[in-house]
Amino acid sequence: MPDSLPPDSVGLVTPRTLHFSEPLPLACGQSLPEYDLVIETYGELNAEASNAVLICHALSGHHHAAGFHDMSDRKPGWWDSCIGPGKPIDTNHFYVVSLNNLGGCHGSTGPTSTNPATGKCYGPDFPVITVKDWVSSQAALADRLGIQCWAAVVGGSLGGMQALQWSLTFPDRLRHAVVIASTPRLTAQNIAFNEVARQAITSDPEFYEGRYQEHNATPRHGLTLARMVGHITYLSDASMGEKFGRDMREQAYKFGYDAEFQVESYLRYQGERFSESFDANTYLLMTKALDYFDPAYDADNNLAAALSQAQCEFLVLSFSTDWRFTPARSEELVKAMIAARRKVSYAEIDAPWGHDAFLIPTPRYIDAFSAYMKRVAREVGA
Amino acid sequence: MPDSLPPDSVGLVTPRTLHFSEPLPLACGQSLPEYDLVIETYGELNAEASNAVLICHALSGHHHAAGFHDMSDRKPGWWDSCIGPGKPIDTNHFYVVSLNNLGGCHGSTGPTSTNPATGKCYGPDFPVITVKDWVSSQAALADRLGIQCWAAVVGGSLGGMQALQWSLTFPDRLRHAVVIASTPRLTAQNIAFNEVARQAITSDPEFYEGRYQEHNATPRHGLTLARMVGHITYLSDASMGEKFGRDMREQAYKFGYDAEFQVESYLRYQGERFSESFDANTYLLMTKALDYFDPAYDADNNLAAALSQAQCEFLVLSFSTDWRFTPARSEELVKAMIAARRKVSYAEIDAPWGHDAFLIPTPRYIDAFSAYMKRVAREVGA
Repeated sequence: MPDSLPPDSVGLVTPRTLHFSEPLPLACGQSLPEYDLVIETYGELNAEASNAVLICHALSGHHHAAGFHDMSDRKPGWWDSCIGPGKPIDTNHFYVVSLNNLGGCHGSTGPTSTNPATGKCYGPDFPVITVKDWVSSQAALADRLGIQCWAAVVGGSLGGMQALQWSLTFPDRLRHAVVIASTPRLTAQNIAFNEVARQAITSDPEFYEGRYQEHNATPRHGLTLARMVGHITYLSDASMGEKFGRDMREQAYKFGYDAEFQVESYLRYQGERFSESFDANTYLLMTKALDYFDPAYDADNNLAAALSQAQCEFLVLSFSTDWRFTPARSEELVKAMIAARRKVSYAEIDAPWGHDAFLIPTPRYIDAFSAYMKRVAREVGA
Repeated sequence: MPDSLPPDSVGLVTPRTLHFSEPLPLACGQSLPEYDLVIETYGELNAEASNAVLICHALSGHHHAAGFHDMSDRKPGWWDSCIGPGKPIDTNHFYVVSLNNLGGCHGSTGPTSTNPATGKCYGPDFPVITVKDWVSSQAALADRLGIQCWAAVVGGSLGGMQALQWSLTFPDRLRHAVVIASTPRLTAQNIAFNEVARQAITSDPEFYEGRYQEHNATPRHGLTLARMVGHITYLSDASMGEKFGRDMREQAYKFGYDAEFQVESYLRYQGERFSESFDANTYLLMTKALDYFDPAYDADNNLAAALSQAQCEFLVLSFSTDWRFTPARSEELVKAMIAARRKVSYAEIDAPWGHDAFLIPTPRYIDAFSAYMKRVAREVGA
């Protein structure tokens, strides 16, 4: 490994694309005739194929969870803080599989892919994908990789919903589900913020009812706004205050409508950068997957009854200042698990970073996560 | 009074427009050569002119705070819950003055008014107005009405900022300042939400750099989005949950991008209705006035030092679930008042309605507010 990569990094990694030609039936009633999934793997699968860990990503995530693609990369994968030798998801013990979900815009089949039925890109015709559908496609991926049972399925936020859904759809195909900074279902406020993001995108005249690619256009302003709103909900009031406070860009008030405070230009910049690389239809799709997720829905709104199907053990982690998916939502989930007599470990981590805390390696978080995953490793003989 | 108006209503009221031909110097360095203020009054000014109460409005408010304009009105003024005979601001005792602030879009001079220098509407050329400027214009209004000293200046949210500013700019012209659901300055998160609203408006192609009137256009989508974001921050997660939960518009999921949940269509409807009646440049101006308000700024960020100029007594009220201007922000203000040896009464009201609680007549709120105002009435012999 080149000298300049950190010693606890998985190092240089190369994504690969797997093609699936078996149709995938979807919750919406349609089915995908064929599809690609882009994946990365870190560590080695053992002879018994018992040490595999699946990483599920959140709204804007992708397959590149750890390591570097190129020596010139300025940043590693999005969850490099938790995946690597000696890290909570320890690649000395685990074979880690990370994918870009269906409907994504980082190489897996999604709205920007070519629709085989028309020869044109799917755009808005790409079907709405749910968390259940992702889990089905991830099961096809497990089959392809020769993994009958995951040592653990792990995810934060929307990723945590996928880990939870795995325990319900394929109860005998995972030993542990790790559900971090997540929720058993969105609140009205969560849905409301998603709806603002969707309206921002769809009311942009460059959206063209989702056919912006055919018009050589991008709903850049709408996507920027959607990301700005999202970004605010990922941070806590306190962490924004700590980072920006009322710091100004210049010394004196300008009494105009340009960005006056640092927090304004930061948000604009983040939003604009995001809008240059992310697909608007994918953003819509991801927010809908969040809205629809509701495992209790099929069990007469009884979450404990829904969870009684699960066989795996659970680790649930929440963060004190997360106001997107508050600790109260995790506790609701944990209570239902206990009522369903499932084995569950729970910790609320005191961290100032809001929802984004699940990406930040604070010591108590890393300790709790590592201790649990060490036990998983021992169990599977990894 | 007609039979069908409630007995505790101020009844039918008629706004009037006052013209001010003395120029008003503004914080931004410009000055307004002349201006109109639209006002309503309720109750009677006593012979000593000692019983006058000024009502200051918040972001989307106006002069019509109480009573009805017409027997066919479906709703009374925006603060009818607190103004009227027997209500906290009791019109049996007080002469109540309510105005539309400068820069507004309900009749007072603002971006939609004609610029006397050009003969065209001001639009984006209307100067940025600050809370200090509003207080200056309100002092001119007091002069015109023959009110040397207000019994109280009262406001919620951005209105509370004006009450606070009165105590600093004209310490001997008010006896009491009532600061409800407000804050001594915005946090980074508050500014960030305002910036999202501004970007939504200014990135709407119908905005035309603020000259939409000249183009016979309205940045309707941008204003709708701005209001939707604002609306979410006015409610609590709990009250949205109580009101909407995950209630759907139809029985089964549609797996599309139309509004699926009640909360989505409610927000869209509220946003669209707002966008039909509110001026976009005014919205920008109001959010900037919020951002700029920071009385500690001129006193080396020492709020107590700033408050030492004040001579009035204060009532500060906050609401437990207000996450826009949390009780902690009110407590920060109260602590600084105590450090400055000012007289202050404070109550945090337990109410589930978020920031909007200041408009809702919950018993504990009404009791605390009424008790304080009764004392004010006794003091001024009203």
